[in-house]
Amino acid sequence: MTFTQMLAAAWQKNNSLLCVGLDPDPAKFPAHLKGRDDAILEFCTAIVDATADLVCAFKPQIAYFAARRAEDQLEALIAHIHAKHPGIPVILDAKRGDIGSTAEQYAVEAFARFQADAVTVNPYMGRDSVEPWLAYPDKGVILLCRTSNPGGSDLQFLDVGGEKLYERVARLAGGEWNTTGQIGLVVGATFPAEIARVRALVGDVPLLVPGIGAQGGDIEATVQAGRTADGTGLMINSSRAILYAGKDENYAAAARQAALETRDAINRYR
Amino acid sequence: MTFTQMLAAAWQKNNSLLCVGLDPDPAKFPAHLKGRDDAILEFCTAIVDATADLVCAFKPQIAYFAARRAEDQLEALIAHIHAKHPGIPVILDAKRGDIGSTAEQYAVEAFARFQADAVTVNPYMGRDSVEPWLAYPDKGVILLCRTSNPGGSDLQFLDVGGEKLYERVARLAGGEWNTTGQIGLVVGATFPAEIARVRALVGDVPLLVPGIGAQGGDIEATVQAGRTADGTGLMINSSRAILYAGKDENYAAAARQAALETRDAINRYR
Repeated sequence: MTFTQMLAAAWQKNNSLLCVGLDPDPAKFPAHLKGRDDAILEFCTAIVDATADLVCAFKPQIAYFAARRAEDQLEALIAHIHAKHPGIPVILDAKRGDIGSTAEQYAVEAFARFQADAVTVNPYMGRDSVEPWLAYPDKGVILLCRTSNPGGSDLQFLDVGGEKLYERVARLAGGEWNTTGQIGLVVGATFPAEIARVRALVGDVPLLVPGIGAQGGDIEATVQAGRTADGTGLMINSSRAILYAGKDENYAAAARQAALETRDAINRYR
Repeated sequence: MTFTQMLAAAWQKNNSLLCVGLDPDPAKFPAHLKGRDDAILEFCTAIVDATADLVCAFKPQIAYFAARRAEDQLEALIAHIHAKHPGIPVILDAKRGDIGSTAEQYAVEAFARFQADAVTVNPYMGRDSVEPWLAYPDKGVILLCRTSNPGGSDLQFLDVGGEKLYERVARLAGGEWNTTGQIGLVVGATFPAEIARVRALVGDVPLLVPGIGAQGGDIEATVQAGRTADGTGLMINSSRAILYAGKDENYAAAARQAALETRDAINRYR
């Protein structure tokens, strides 16, 4: 099953556009996990098991693992998701981007080593830096387009001849480069008007939307701007607001409650 | 000693603008190394030891290690360079780029875990995605500007109001964002006219120049376009042409010979 098919099935089965971002920061873990060698894996698998029937995808952010020499825990986490929650796609948030011969190595990292179903990729180096990822026909390739951070405007909002850079990226990546239908785009929830603009440019291409929750993006505006005609098309990511909803041994139950409320808040506007 | 100081000292001490890129591909290793668990480390340390007096920097490319679960060998390699060849800076070629809270994690990966002296970073997400790297005052932060691959033109060559996107990146990153003097820029050797343009925009900011050797960039044109008034300012990278100059047990000696010839070819035009 391809990433696109897995995502479509998860949207339906779990009636959810919610993607839970797995950004494990040991400094924020409940006290009973601190000091354990496998704390990251233990924390993340508990979150995953508590929320897997409420999400359309999980998105581990690789930096949080790499900063702590925990690539083995990331491998084990993704294997756990595939084994225990088959059908829920895993998006490796890595924002890689390099020339073709190096991109081939990064694709091995993401798809062969970590067994991710999709990966986030930076478009700055252009089409031939994206193509090695597309050589894996079952995988999703989600390109940065309009990011949710304040500095996202520094380059992405520059006028490149009647349109903004992020609009050009949307047209190229969602159109000309998307010959195989594997491409998605990252568009931040902090800019609903730009989500609507991207949606108008790319048809039904899936949009990964970070920025609700801790970053302040508005759920109603995001859904109304980004949904497709059938009320799907979005992976709306929340990380910190779900992971750290509880502060003690109840953290997984608290995460489930936060995920449930977020999924239902999203569904009110579909 | 800061990265900038280390680089300036290495330019002088080794009379070299050559950066050797460490992109270890086991499929290209000499037969006697194949199948060894530590083949990547063994291969790279032999290259390093054979060329350390001929270079201004080493640049390991992290994808080649990550694709093979060899982060431990990358750690050991960088530790080896620091221990055996003090004063030669290590640039971790990782092309990371993310929002501030995640960039902080990537900076821990590059600087605390891997002990790199500098890192390559993608500017697409803007200023606040660069700032967490600058919080390490001894470290260098080398931003992608004009990359050497064919698709580099897709976005970087767009006109953004009287200048091209790569020129805007050069002006922002080399100027307004470079309050601490830690920033360098990546400009491909395949585009000498654009190296000259970037040099004109950013003064003496160090330029990392990939694309000579296997990618076809011209050494004379690169040096004449990019050198500063004192004949430095460049880290001219060669990877495959040096790493794989020899095909058998003589590979380190062959790499030394290739590095010597490349250093001297560069020096003829300084």
